[in-house]
Amino acid sequence: MTAYDDQNVFAKILRGEIPCFEVFRDDRSFAFLDIMPRSPGHTLVIPRAPARGILDIADDDLAAVARTAKRIAIAAMKAFDAEGIILQQFSEPASGQVVFHLHMHVMPVWAGVELLPAQTRKEEMAVLAGHAKRMIAAIGG
Amino acid sequence: MTAYDDQNVFAKILRGEIPCFEVFRDDRSFAFLDIMPRSPGHTLVIPRAPARGILDIADDDLAAVARTAKRIAIAAMKAFDAEGIILQQFSEPASGQVVFHLHMHVMPVWAGVELLPAQTRKEEMAVLAGHAKRMIAAIGG
Repeated sequence: MTAYDDQNVFAKILRGEIPCFEVFRDDRSFAFLDIMPRSPGHTLVIPRAPARGILDIADDDLAAVARTAKRIAIAAMKAFDAEGIILQQFSEPASGQVVFHLHMHVMPVWAGVELLPAQTRKEEMAVLAGHAKRMIAAIGG
Repeated sequence: MTAYDDQNVFAKILRGEIPCFEVFRDDRSFAFLDIMPRSPGHTLVIPRAPARGILDIADDDLAAVARTAKRIAIAAMKAFDAEGIILQQFSEPASGQVVFHLHMHVMPVWAGVELLPAQTRKEEMAVLAGHAKRMIAAIGG
């Protein structure tokens, strides 16, 4: 497996070198909105430590990512009045992984509403800002 | 959210009431082959304790499921000479969840090879038995 490259975009987000719509962080995990959401509220949960994917992440970091994904899922159900949640995680190029820092997709879903195809439409910044506020309120409450 | 129903098929598998192609178990998690695999080696990881989905699973059980999913992913790369891994988890009917005991799909993938659509083709038992042997050998070694 290729080594971790700390110039990936999520590493830059973690270092604060580029902005994101953060919704949650704890000591090991970090959650922010996908700017090309497949559904409203689509959030990415990542480890704060370097990890390329499921094959190399440390167990404690993976547990933290999973725990935060659950927290985000529960908050998204509330914030967006969702009817279900889909989690997805892609490891290595053959899977469709594009950014090589492990990320768990947490996507709120509704009956009869298909997810948008991946990476097809960049959401308006104002919409994402509103969604982040709703998520932060739901996580806190 | 609907309460957990202990008559679901994975609860029956956990109780040994119906058979499965088990590949791994520890104190909190259990892994077995999907009999309608979307790719060769497609494995399901579930908590041994009751949990309907991501919204109600206990943190310790979720950590165990995630840790085992990683273990299965690493083994599947080796057992099937895979090029990547896709993890998926569906919660609630709107997401496409059909069996209401949390299950994490661990699917080996190869570049240029699409996953089969979900639940379209039941694999031959002899093929699954062979895949289970390969997985068990890879997990052990």
